[in-house]
Amino acid sequence: MAVMTTRRAIVRRGVPAPDDLAVEEPLILALDGAPIATLMRTPGHDIELAAGWLNVESGVRTADDVAVLRSCRDDDTDRVHIDLRAGVEPPRPRAFVTSAACGVCSADVVDVTPLRRADPHTPGWTIGSDVLVGLPDAMREQQKAFRRTGAVHAAALADTAGVLHVVREDVGRHNAVDKVVGRALLDGLLPATDHLLVVSGRVSFEIVQKAVAAGVAGIVAVSAPSSLAVDLARKQGLLLAGLVRNGTCNLYAGADLVV
Amino acid sequence: MAVMTTRRAIVRRGVPAPDDLAVEEPLILALDGAPIATLMRTPGHDIELAAGWLNVESGVRTADDVAVLRSCRDDDTDRVHIDLRAGVEPPRPRAFVTSAACGVCSADVVDVTPLRRADPHTPGWTIGSDVLVGLPDAMREQQKAFRRTGAVHAAALADTAGVLHVVREDVGRHNAVDKVVGRALLDGLLPATDHLLVVSGRVSFEIVQKAVAAGVAGIVAVSAPSSLAVDLARKQGLLLAGLVRNGTCNLYAGADLVV
Repeated sequence: MAVMTTRRAIVRRGVPAPDDLAVEEPLILALDGAPIATLMRTPGHDIELAAGWLNVESGVRTADDVAVLRSCRDDDTDRVHIDLRAGVEPPRPRAFVTSAACGVCSADVVDVTPLRRADPHTPGWTIGSDVLVGLPDAMREQQKAFRRTGAVHAAALADTAGVLHVVREDVGRHNAVDKVVGRALLDGLLPATDHLLVVSGRVSFEIVQKAVAAGVAGIVAVSAPSSLAVDLARKQGLLLAGLVRNGTCNLYAGADLVV
Repeated sequence: MAVMTTRRAIVRRGVPAPDDLAVEEPLILALDGAPIATLMRTPGHDIELAAGWLNVESGVRTADDVAVLRSCRDDDTDRVHIDLRAGVEPPRPRAFVTSAACGVCSADVVDVTPLRRADPHTPGWTIGSDVLVGLPDAMREQQKAFRRTGAVHAAALADTAGVLHVVREDVGRHNAVDKVVGRALLDGLLPATDHLLVVSGRVSFEIVQKAVAAGVAGIVAVSAPSSLAVDLARKQGLLLAGLVRNGTCNLYAGADLVV
């Protein structure tokens, strides 16, 4: 059983006291025996984390795309070993595409638009506003590490009835999303076109990228999105609700999907 | 003048309304003409951001280590061109060190401990607890983009009198720290052994790495640290104060430095 919180002796309000902290440790992802990434994450659900990371960083779209996904611990460091099926696009450095551009530096320009979404959301898909605004509270009830530390992000996959199918926690908000998406991938639920991704923090461009790769219908966030997150969500037809608090919310994209 | 916030038409509590969002856009860092990193950041202080990033990711320690640091905008993408002086260690992939380890994957294990701190804090250095607990409020007074959007992180450099020398904002909490450290580097203030790094969010391992590379005496954070952040701060002799709210705080490391 992975340990998600750990205790340290600290000084609280001038008095020595024990304190529960969110555990942060490195996880090495190894492809065909060679390290390809180190994720600073909260231990637990490492296989899911690797699967979700692969879903947005490689051509992996189903569990069948992966030949081996196995965790081990050596030399006090956790690893997940990955072998992909033949023909599956491996993880790559963040996409650069060529364009005629700056005359001084090289002509590479970052491609900030993922085009790998499996499907748009189901035609006619909608969600009730009363269900939507209740999702963060429903998720919080399952945030065990957050209750102990006050410093752990969470993500969840929810359906239109407000049922949470997966809830995961991590010191990194990206990791929490990867764990949720990875679980869904391993369960054969991707693309999750009838589901929403619920996140405890803000929504950056990268969170929308992960939602796009997972094929969810939208994102429901406790905090606010960035400009680029809103623009990408609109471009991809995603619902994007933010500042979901006290029974209300802001709808940044896909407002017509909320009834 | 860089635009840090931007307006979009959204639906707020069921009613169409304008909303100010934090701008998130890619910044390409190019070394000797070749892209080496893309940072998703809030525009503004790009030169500082690049300088701070170099301080933790390369051998750059002073402005003299850099021959060229120049921003340009081409093809709608911002870039900072970097040329280093001869002999200065260039940015490198996140450090892997060799060790006899796992028999299955390769023998590389991530080195999670930076050893590049310029100096320990000044002997005899202390800070008053009344000054310390007031730093986040003092910083918040200068968080203009946060006031407009509610979704921008901030970082600052503070002295023991509670004076803030630099305050910077960004959608990425790492970027906000890099901007502050970069400004200090360009001003010849590093290692900032008599100063504290103030951050608006949580403290992960990477934030402590940046503090170590900047040579500050400690970190003051609005939210809580991770386990690894606490362990690294203790190992490096840093002060680490968290959950600094309502006139009180938790001291996770270096409690003897607070008087």
